[in-house]
Amino acid sequence: MTKQENLQRLFSPRSIVFVGGSNLALPIQNTRDIGFDGEIWVVNPKCAEIAGIPCFASIADLPGTPDAAFVSINAKLTVQAVADLNKRGCGGVVCYAAGFAEVGDNGDELQDSLVEAAGDMALVGPNCYGLLNFTNGVALWPDRLSGERTDKGVAIISQSGNVALNLTMHGRSLSITHVISVGNQAVLGAGDYIEPLLEDDRVTAIGFYIEGLKDIETFSRAALKALEKGVPLVVLKAGTSEIGTQLTMSHTSSLAGSDDMYQAMFDRLGILRVHSLSELLETLKIASLCELPKGDRIGVLTCSGGDSAMLADSLDHYNLQLPSLSKVQEQKLGEWLPDFASLSNPLDYNTSIWGNLEACTEVFGIMMEGDCDATVLALDFPKQGIGDDHEWQVAVDSLIAAHANHPKTCAVISNLSELMPENARQRLAKAGIAPLQSLKDGVAALARLVRYGERRRQVAAMDDPEQLLLRGPSLVEGESKMLDEWASKQLVSRYGLQLPGGRCVSKADVVEAADEVGYPVVMKGVSDRLAHKTEAGAVMLNLKDGSAVASAVEVMAGRLAEQGLADARFLIEPMISDFVGELIIGLKRDEQFGLALIIGTGGILVNLLNDSAIMLLPITREAASTAVLSLKGSALLRGFRGRPEGDLEAVVDAIMAVADFAMDHWDSVTELDINPLMVRPKGKGAVAADALIRLQQ
Amino acid sequence: MTKQENLQRLFSPRSIVFVGGSNLALPIQNTRDIGFDGEIWVVNPKCAEIAGIPCFASIADLPGTPDAAFVSINAKLTVQAVADLNKRGCGGVVCYAAGFAEVGDNGDELQDSLVEAAGDMALVGPNCYGLLNFTNGVALWPDRLSGERTDKGVAIISQSGNVALNLTMHGRSLSITHVISVGNQAVLGAGDYIEPLLEDDRVTAIGFYIEGLKDIETFSRAALKALEKGVPLVVLKAGTSEIGTQLTMSHTSSLAGSDDMYQAMFDRLGILRVHSLSELLETLKIASLCELPKGDRIGVLTCSGGDSAMLADSLDHYNLQLPSLSKVQEQKLGEWLPDFASLSNPLDYNTSIWGNLEACTEVFGIMMEGDCDATVLALDFPKQGIGDDHEWQVAVDSLIAAHANHPKTCAVISNLSELMPENARQRLAKAGIAPLQSLKDGVAALARLVRYGERRRQVAAMDDPEQLLLRGPSLVEGESKMLDEWASKQLVSRYGLQLPGGRCVSKADVVEAADEVGYPVVMKGVSDRLAHKTEAGAVMLNLKDGSAVASAVEVMAGRLAEQGLADARFLIEPMISDFVGELIIGLKRDEQFGLALIIGTGGILVNLLNDSAIMLLPITREAASTAVLSLKGSALLRGFRGRPEGDLEAVVDAIMAVADFAMDHWDSVTELDINPLMVRPKGKGAVAADALIRLQQ
Repeated sequence: MTKQENLQRLFSPRSIVFVGGSNLALPIQNTRDIGFDGEIWVVNPKCAEIAGIPCFASIADLPGTPDAAFVSINAKLTVQAVADLNKRGCGGVVCYAAGFAEVGDNGDELQDSLVEAAGDMALVGPNCYGLLNFTNGVALWPDRLSGERTDKGVAIISQSGNVALNLTMHGRSLSITHVISVGNQAVLGAGDYIEPLLEDDRVTAIGFYIEGLKDIETFSRAALKALEKGVPLVVLKAGTSEIGTQLTMSHTSSLAGSDDMYQAMFDRLGILRVHSLSELLETLKIASLCELPKGDRIGVLTCSGGDSAMLADSLDHYNLQLPSLSKVQEQKLGEWLPDFASLSNPLDYNTSIWGNLEACTEVFGIMMEGDCDATVLALDFPKQGIGDDHEWQVAVDSLIAAHANHPKTCAVISNLSELMPENARQRLAKAGIAPLQSLKDGVAALARLVRYGERRRQVAAMDDPEQLLLRGPSLVEGESKMLDEWASKQLVSRYGLQLPGGRCVSKADVVEAADEVGYPVVMKGVSDRLAHKTEAGAVMLNLKDGSAVASAVEVMAGRLAEQGLADARFLIEPMISDFVGELIIGLKRDEQFGLALIIGTGGILVNLLNDSAIMLLPITREAASTAVLSLKGSALLRGFRGRPEGDLEAVVDAIMAVADFAMDHWDSVTELDINPLMVRPKGKGAVAADALIRLQQ
Repeated sequence: MTKQENLQRLFSPRSIVFVGGSNLALPIQNTRDIGFDGEIWVVNPKCAEIAGIPCFASIADLPGTPDAAFVSINAKLTVQAVADLNKRGCGGVVCYAAGFAEVGDNGDELQDSLVEAAGDMALVGPNCYGLLNFTNGVALWPDRLSGERTDKGVAIISQSGNVALNLTMHGRSLSITHVISVGNQAVLGAGDYIEPLLEDDRVTAIGFYIEGLKDIETFSRAALKALEKGVPLVVLKAGTSEIGTQLTMSHTSSLAGSDDMYQAMFDRLGILRVHSLSELLETLKIASLCELPKGDRIGVLTCSGGDSAMLADSLDHYNLQLPSLSKVQEQKLGEWLPDFASLSNPLDYNTSIWGNLEACTEVFGIMMEGDCDATVLALDFPKQGIGDDHEWQVAVDSLIAAHANHPKTCAVISNLSELMPENARQRLAKAGIAPLQSLKDGVAALARLVRYGERRRQVAAMDDPEQLLLRGPSLVEGESKMLDEWASKQLVSRYGLQLPGGRCVSKADVVEAADEVGYPVVMKGVSDRLAHKTEAGAVMLNLKDGSAVASAVEVMAGRLAEQGLADARFLIEPMISDFVGELIIGLKRDEQFGLALIIGTGGILVNLLNDSAIMLLPITREAASTAVLSLKGSALLRGFRGRPEGDLEAVVDAIMAVADFAMDHWDSVTELDINPLMVRPKGKGAVAADALIRLQQ
């Protein structure tokens, strides 16, 4: 059986074996409590019984083939048990023990043995908390169990066992179907769990706590499938800071990787990124409960000017729109609201209709009729025990009734997370309205869902969404070798990069070449041992005639000879002076993402603006163009202060040339820099004034 | 009696009169519930009794002088009642009714009458929820009451009644001494309540929800006092977005004002700004409970790699430091923690000492011994009802014990706000440790307190902190009049602004003036009817000799004559070409803040960088210098890419000249622009190439 088939067995086992000592009592109790109705076996060579179940002395003694195993013994013994389970044809195994790759040295070796022992079994961990399945009733889980059986909800995949545990303890009326603590991802990576979850229609969204992914290719394929199916992936990625990154290395042995590459991947694949666990839960809640908004126009209902102002500020922070009310809406609202009410969006419907079911239902409905894609009601209940909450429940009833007639995205947001009681949350959730707790997290969640919808529509409109898939890293072994400027330029020019049109010649032919190229010229020394030309005195600009060239080449050749570069050749190019801006185009190799393409504003502005954009490959012309326009310095290319516009099409051509080159040299290029690309006025092109490539030989 | 004395009577009344109908039952009940032990009277001309208290027919009939009144009748009648109360010598009055300035038109007039009727009474509102005093037991409060009597805690001042109400309902173990819903601030502004609260040592911090202040001068004076006393002010300012700003206008009739000016005021006066109600509460909590941290170095304790990574990321986001452990700390920790523990900050002390009081106390203490100014422990309790929480309580006990030996700033942060139970919160709070709920809000709160401490130390070191006080807006009536460039320059040069050193002459004297100034020169037309010189063809640069000047002046004079400016004069200045950067210095008039000084990067970069800083007045040289260096474009002034450094001292001189000019013309200047100030290399000065001033006549 394949690993994926075995993973399905692990998710829905008919038999489970527990291997370990008395600490198995809790996971066994959990398995009973969650209502697992298959066979439960226990293996322990010394005890007669654990948790009331008679023990088998060894895995070999088991009366049948287990679909799932929970192994809770030390690291070394775990390897042996996994080998034995594999021999018995077990489907999947949760390895609880720590002491593998996360501790380094011996641990690395032990983890290698574990992977080998597992064969095609679906191995979760090691150094993990295991898994919970609240749809089928599985709890391979070493800690106290919180949560209830459910028919629909969100799955959680976490690289931290403690984070997984804490998430199960939430008090937010979010239904959870699965929790998977992936630990060291020795066999199954975080991405491997996505596809089987997508096959289960009960899973409406998937939440992640990740520190680093081990397999970008698998993850990107699964993420694209999720996007196409409409199951949002919501990700909290830790390790954005330097210390955070170091930590993630040490505790689950995963590389945090470059945060901007992760961000580029999330943007590309419509993955919703969040920045705290509460935001993760609230985003999962709205993603799981609500229809996707068709746009970014939000209608807001409050019963307080303060809530209106804070919501307006917060929506604006996320660039969400507050469409004005139509004349019809104003007129209809005027029939229900007193004269002093100001009819606007946000609408402070005010206390005159407070507690009035009919009036609230009408007013809420009129708001939903309008030109908005989602409706938000601000509502903080009184603290439990401080009088009854009848009027607040009427507001909930009214919203549910209005929403039934206008089935758009709809949420209630309580400003303080504790001021939305459970019964109200449950009623709202049942009606398909998200009960979001805390204004900041709630608005963030809504904004993520809006952006998700936008990205999903963009991808659906693509001819070939598969071009969004990412290739993992791979690099041939060997030594990296620098190409000289001429060879670098020639290589990328085959992919369409425009060059200034020069000649590379030996010293004797320099003047002839310059005459041919046309004055003024630039002269540069060319050698694959010459990385820093300016410092070596190997760049001379603006040579105006043959005699200038003749004397310049003497000087330069002398300098180069002193540096042991008597064999250098000379590149003669026309001097370019009609450029309107300069860009840098580069390739960066990353241990997790392979190659990424970076563009930035060049020239004197580069330090001042610190202005760059990163793109994962492959890219489309559209994406390249968007990236260029995202640079602050692109103002220079768009006709800045009366200057001519730059040739944006030619810039995109140059980027695509580098991207195509990168795809063809995925395994060998370690560095590429085009610095600068000189952007001429519209229609006149963009040429690489300098280029440098390093290839693995 | 003064308003301030009357306000003290309102805060601590010995007698309260309620004026209104049957809806007084709730505020009267609240007054009893909170334990008010003075006289309670009720005025109603029609009812015999309300809430069991016999009614007086009128205010005149009262048997004594009330210290406080709660008036809950319509807007018009409220004005009469307030006049009657004033006549009786009442101290303070809460006016609950809406229908005043917030509705405009008639409401404005009514509010004016109300202010007049109030005389020197301390009037809260109108259009407000009144006030609660949990120290003395006062509840002039029209809605359900939540909260308990206390001897120490934070005061809340809110411009939204609903926000005030919701804040009283929090479930965060924050002790509240006062809640004041300031409504329309017709008589008392939000700032007026600060000083009397500062006189009460039971108030440890003050929280604000504000939309706009009415009296910047009073507020700044009170804020400085609070800073000097060490009572942090924590502010949530709504109306940062355009729609948010409009809303705040309509519902409490206050101007939201320019957000960047508010931010400048907050920074200046060490006011802690927050962005949500939960952050407000958590920041008040830490500000109220903890010692001020002496610096920004944080020691972090967690029992999970995930928590360590998230905390490190979050602390980094706020630029808080994580100092490394010392050798001594590492050695001591090694005695308590297993070999596989990685000894770093954040410290994942891991589960091997989990539940062990002695070990946890030692480990936590070793962390506190170190080179850090505050300690944070990450701790999420299990959900209530999911098993016992003994080990978590041990962690709390250990922290309390360790903190007793190392009394530095200390907080516990639960990742999810709901996973810190009340009993743990109470125990921590009692021990002077802040139980912060939600990682994001918690770290934000800690960061605010660190920055507050820094600012407090800065201000304490100032010779004259009073120079931080702000002057309110004031502007003489009249028409604004533009000064011509020459007059503008001369005016500010008296305050020390450096000019290029030119001459302003009539057409006939232009060549002579140019000869005197020295070539090359710049020539400009000068007239107080000429605002856009370049567009009018009234600027000519780089005139190299007398004949160039002679012909240029003919052309320019002709152009000006065509535009009806035959009377224009001509300014001849030396052409400045050795500048390394250009700045813009301007004054902006604001309805709430009076004048503010703005500096920005000038020249071609201005559009590209969008780079400016705003300063409230008066300013110190230090503040001016800090503002210049905060500009991205200041890189150009610091010796960018091998160019010469700019004359920063001269830039500061120029800013101070404009600032001094502004202070002297506070009531009359409506606009000032120095654009550009040309910054020459170090030691060579910075000169105003152009200047424009508008003054109220």
